[in-house]
Amino acid sequence: MGGGYRRYVWTEPEAELRAWFRAEALARGLAYEVDRNGNQWAWAGDPAAGDAVVTGSHLDSVPDGGAFDGPLGVVSAFAALDLLRERGLPPGSRPLGVVAFAEEEGARFGVACLGSRLSSGLIEPARAHRLTDADGVSLAAAMERAGQDPGAIGPDPERLARIGAFVELHIEQGRALAGLGRAVGVGSVIWPHGRWRFDFRGEANHAGTTRVEDRRDPMLTYAHTVLAARKRARLAGALATFGKVAVEPGAVNAIPSLVTGWLDSRAPDGGTLDALVAGIERTAAERGGRDGVTVAVTRESHTAGVAFSAELRDRAAHRLGGAPALPTGAGHDAGILSGAVPTAMLYVRNPTGVSHAPAEHADEGDCLAGVTALADVLEGLL
Amino acid sequence: MGGGYRRYVWTEPEAELRAWFRAEALARGLAYEVDRNGNQWAWAGDPAAGDAVVTGSHLDSVPDGGAFDGPLGVVSAFAALDLLRERGLPPGSRPLGVVAFAEEEGARFGVACLGSRLSSGLIEPARAHRLTDADGVSLAAAMERAGQDPGAIGPDPERLARIGAFVELHIEQGRALAGLGRAVGVGSVIWPHGRWRFDFRGEANHAGTTRVEDRRDPMLTYAHTVLAARKRARLAGALATFGKVAVEPGAVNAIPSLVTGWLDSRAPDGGTLDALVAGIERTAAERGGRDGVTVAVTRESHTAGVAFSAELRDRAAHRLGGAPALPTGAGHDAGILSGAVPTAMLYVRNPTGVSHAPAEHADEGDCLAGVTALADVLEGLL
Repeated sequence: MGGGYRRYVWTEPEAELRAWFRAEALARGLAYEVDRNGNQWAWAGDPAAGDAVVTGSHLDSVPDGGAFDGPLGVVSAFAALDLLRERGLPPGSRPLGVVAFAEEEGARFGVACLGSRLSSGLIEPARAHRLTDADGVSLAAAMERAGQDPGAIGPDPERLARIGAFVELHIEQGRALAGLGRAVGVGSVIWPHGRWRFDFRGEANHAGTTRVEDRRDPMLTYAHTVLAARKRARLAGALATFGKVAVEPGAVNAIPSLVTGWLDSRAPDGGTLDALVAGIERTAAERGGRDGVTVAVTRESHTAGVAFSAELRDRAAHRLGGAPALPTGAGHDAGILSGAVPTAMLYVRNPTGVSHAPAEHADEGDCLAGVTALADVLEGLL
Repeated sequence: MGGGYRRYVWTEPEAELRAWFRAEALARGLAYEVDRNGNQWAWAGDPAAGDAVVTGSHLDSVPDGGAFDGPLGVVSAFAALDLLRERGLPPGSRPLGVVAFAEEEGARFGVACLGSRLSSGLIEPARAHRLTDADGVSLAAAMERAGQDPGAIGPDPERLARIGAFVELHIEQGRALAGLGRAVGVGSVIWPHGRWRFDFRGEANHAGTTRVEDRRDPMLTYAHTVLAARKRARLAGALATFGKVAVEPGAVNAIPSLVTGWLDSRAPDGGTLDALVAGIERTAAERGGRDGVTVAVTRESHTAGVAFSAELRDRAAHRLGGAPALPTGAGHDAGILSGAVPTAMLYVRNPTGVSHAPAEHADEGDCLAGVTALADVLEGLL
């Protein structure tokens, strides 16, 4: 094991976090609710009044993840609310909500931003029901076990229509702020990104007796594709990563029959991303031809690029004294919601840039600066 | 799943095969026993008389294995005994034994030829006790659950001393006999072979935000090593295969912290094998240096080359009308026993050469030719 957190949706560790969220909401006298898709909400003021200002993030983690990715945005949301109350909220303020979206990382069921995606109608409930985790447990079964009705999942346009602005604070997943010597930045865009499954099929055979020239070894085609993807991404100013692989039969003394590798790829624009992935596919097929291996590619997910609300972004940057605007390759619930709601993001400095790993970190001073910045931006909106 | 058999030692499917062996022994009026290491024996005549002739193989399989690898040698042993009885065994014959060795493939506990290795004193009982399967079950626990005393495992020199000759029949794991147009061949040598675990350690990070130049991605080093191993093996007239790989954390959107790949390598002689593996290690370390990845290599098993008894081989080849002598890269219980007992092997034609996979096959006519050849060789020894 690599250490770190495994806060997967609808598991015991995540249930503890949900209980924490609820307790924090009730301790502040906020109205608490869980929506049909398992997202948690806490309200100051009546959201039915509309044009609400919402802030928050997510509580789940990737496998062996860090402490900050997700929770920092939720903790900061409650802390910013406290700060605004200390400052004294103006009478007649817009309703203010804190949210924690479910399964943002897609670590258990394989679809990132599942909670916000369902609420936004960007994934069919029937497809979501069929998603399974590594143990073969379906989302529907996992929700039922956790006491949440899976029959209710789906689009939630009324709830989203009440939101006038959404601001998500998140630890930076890179070192741009460290390089600039700034504690807090403002999001500009999210790169388009997606996941592609590459199935390399050869022929299982004995590793100790099959002559080199008689082999159809898909591990070779996979290995060539991994190296080609990296090279093509570097040349395109983009990213391509194989972080997950499965092998059948997976025996030390057997040439594999099947190697499945998952490509995560991201680029500054959709055209670059499409060309990059097409190039990787072409290289894989060419090498497969030489190895006697067939290559089948399935796009498992795709998210178009997002430009956050220019108005919100500029207001936030101005409010924060000219905070720098940062692009990112990472998807966020704010990106998913941006189709329906004006959204903005704040990033808090991460000195090492490490993300999705136990070493991710933000200094306490920077976290407090993030809370103040979030409160300032929310105050401007309220 | 890739289909095929999963006949793992000390599991339910293997218990069925053990019951079958016992029933076949009793049906023929043979004395049946299970030795301290879980190997099954059936005796015609009194083995205590010494200088016994033994034949057999194993019943377990690799993951998703075929029907013939192992069982063909055990079934043929009983069938050859039947044939010899039909022919009328000469009075005063040497004792004749049929054996099925346990865990030949090492598919469950990772050490090939575990049963014959324990009996030959080639693995310490304490080390064997600590071996675990993929679910973390130790060999000791698995044996206890199956009703076999794990405290009794270890060297069995008295039993081996009774054996004057061991002959193992096995399906060919290659296409040499098919090329020669012969149904049966005789083993000449087993190549030296071993398994090495390569641990490639980098740094887990976010696949969507970490710049190419900030990455320490061990998947790249692994991929480069896979391709280099193949190329070096081809140039050396040897074999090198990566058929198993494990990744941490193993998430689509995370650069891995650790990639572990298992190398299976075999060569015509020990010097070539040592040089090949050293070259692969060197290439891995060089590439690791460029990737910011450390590489640690652990030799998990090693078996020296085996030349079968020249006398037995020549007698068998002569008896079979000049059957061709074949080298192999595959380990066998006969190879393990060859240090203590004169051993020989017979191979039965496998038209496609496929091995360790569901498609492995021998035609019925060739299987019957194998039984006749085995009976002929045993008759000559008796």
